[in-house]
Amino acid sequence: MYRIAVDVMSGEKEASELITGALRALKEEKEIELTLIGEYDIISEELAKTDFDSKRLKIENSDEIITMDESPIKALRKKKKATVNVGAKLLKKSKIDAFISPGNTGSVMAAGLLRVGRIKGVSRPPIAIQFPAVNGSTLVLDNGANTDCSPENLKQFALMGQLYAENVMKIDNPKIALLNIGEEKTKGNNLTKESYEVLSNDQRIKNFIGNVEGRDIFSNKVDVVVTDGFVGNIVLKTTEGAASFFLDLIKESFKTNLRSKIAAFLIKPYLKKVLNKIDYRQYGGAPLLGINGVVIISHGGSDGTAIYNAIKAAKRTVKEDIVKLIKAELEKNEELE
Amino acid sequence: MYRIAVDVMSGEKEASELITGALRALKEEKEIELTLIGEYDIISEELAKTDFDSKRLKIENSDEIITMDESPIKALRKKKKATVNVGAKLLKKSKIDAFISPGNTGSVMAAGLLRVGRIKGVSRPPIAIQFPAVNGSTLVLDNGANTDCSPENLKQFALMGQLYAENVMKIDNPKIALLNIGEEKTKGNNLTKESYEVLSNDQRIKNFIGNVEGRDIFSNKVDVVVTDGFVGNIVLKTTEGAASFFLDLIKESFKTNLRSKIAAFLIKPYLKKVLNKIDYRQYGGAPLLGINGVVIISHGGSDGTAIYNAIKAAKRTVKEDIVKLIKAELEKNEELE
Repeated sequence: MYRIAVDVMSGEKEASELITGALRALKEEKEIELTLIGEYDIISEELAKTDFDSKRLKIENSDEIITMDESPIKALRKKKKATVNVGAKLLKKSKIDAFISPGNTGSVMAAGLLRVGRIKGVSRPPIAIQFPAVNGSTLVLDNGANTDCSPENLKQFALMGQLYAENVMKIDNPKIALLNIGEEKTKGNNLTKESYEVLSNDQRIKNFIGNVEGRDIFSNKVDVVVTDGFVGNIVLKTTEGAASFFLDLIKESFKTNLRSKIAAFLIKPYLKKVLNKIDYRQYGGAPLLGINGVVIISHGGSDGTAIYNAIKAAKRTVKEDIVKLIKAELEKNEELE
Repeated sequence: MYRIAVDVMSGEKEASELITGALRALKEEKEIELTLIGEYDIISEELAKTDFDSKRLKIENSDEIITMDESPIKALRKKKKATVNVGAKLLKKSKIDAFISPGNTGSVMAAGLLRVGRIKGVSRPPIAIQFPAVNGSTLVLDNGANTDCSPENLKQFALMGQLYAENVMKIDNPKIALLNIGEEKTKGNNLTKESYEVLSNDQRIKNFIGNVEGRDIFSNKVDVVVTDGFVGNIVLKTTEGAASFFLDLIKESFKTNLRSKIAAFLIKPYLKKVLNKIDYRQYGGAPLLGINGVVIISHGGSDGTAIYNAIKAAKRTVKEDIVKLIKAELEKNEELE
């Protein structure tokens, strides 16, 4: 059994929506046990409305949440019973195998780091996010956990990203690259120039293809893109902004007149497939890699579908035992150096 | 008269296409004099095919170009007669007021820096690019000239961006912001945290609105976004990549079946307007600000339309005398410190 806990209270959407998504996953995935973390009364009232396999579902009471605008570490210390504290502690005590939260990203990260702890040999756990790409998706890490990084940090991101791509995303011999502003190895800022050497020289990175540019993330040229958390987060927000700006322009153009409205009606079902492809909810949240347990940060705006997919991603991550794989690779790393 | 020179040889497109765009600008803009830089025979053969106001057009022979994959500074030193060397020297000698080139970006930049020279008080000239946004466009700088920057560099970018937005883009009281990964002043990496203070404390930056995120570039929340050249270039390429990926998906969806093909036929003219809005060719190239003359770097793939718009942008930039304005602001800066 894969034991997965979901914080259903600290996202932007109602707990009821998130619970619906969780129950859908419970129904489909017979090998999981779910723990819903949040206010007991709210959750049990919601559960009373529907049928589900009660042997595989528990509630873990938590009557506090850390809000989106709170300072993560302070709030984590003050609110001992906050959902993220409860989830991280269950993980630490091995009562669960994975913890999913759509709450304040900094607080989930801090709970992972401080309550669950890092794997030995991992200096800075990165947030890994799958971006949509021509033939599937591209894993980009770090997306915001570590703003100032060293080449050694980036090398560790590459090693963890490689393991995640091979084992969870099931990509054969994943192509690993450094995000840069040109392909030549002499291009870039001080960090990327130094990192290029470090990544090239580590034999454990099996398929290092060198530098890629921002546009290559969406192509099939690369599977894992390594960058510092500042740049990764800028890339994430820029992509969201560009996609939503572009989509708004297209929606506006459909409203022009009768002719365009007919076109809109005709194209709607096909356009929906396009939107699905670029919808973050399909990718089920972002793992915080290098933590001594599976911690998945879901988008703050996660709804039932996003939580459903996050649970499925969590199951795959637990099943492939990514924590053990990272331990084996990175602990060895530390001994060598 | 505004004297503008165009390098018609070192872009990716044929000289004939670029010349057509240049002649269109010459016809519309009665106050400009054009100098076409490139192989005399090729240009004159092209000109022979058409009618134009020959009193306002000159050819400046140059039979070498710096290719896209050459090392800019080396090539600049070796190829004395390369188009960018010829253009930069004309600018240096005040034979022209502005120089436009769609060639190797590094070589145009280096020619500006080494042959024309920086304005006193400007440490690092940035490349300023207009991104499409909800109500017009947002100026982002630097887009790749300076990969590692100091807070002082970013402050200078803000001052130059402000002058360009006020005078060339004609924005009243432009909103200036720092590109960051969160709005709070405590967010970001070492550079942005320090820069926040420096930008807040400079009274000459009249409307500093603090930090913005990647997605805000496409909104009407901000007019000038300041960032280091590494991050700016990543933002540029990511935006290009996301837009083209999204567009390809939509084009694919139109091909699904007869229904979708009819929709495509109906929506085409309206979609074209959308594409125009996000087309770099509308923005006429990117000025290298802080150089002692107007240098405009056009996209390598520039065609006639892009060159036509670049000439119009060059004229506006010369007319508003942005060089003089930057001198007045930044030289003063140096005396104060």
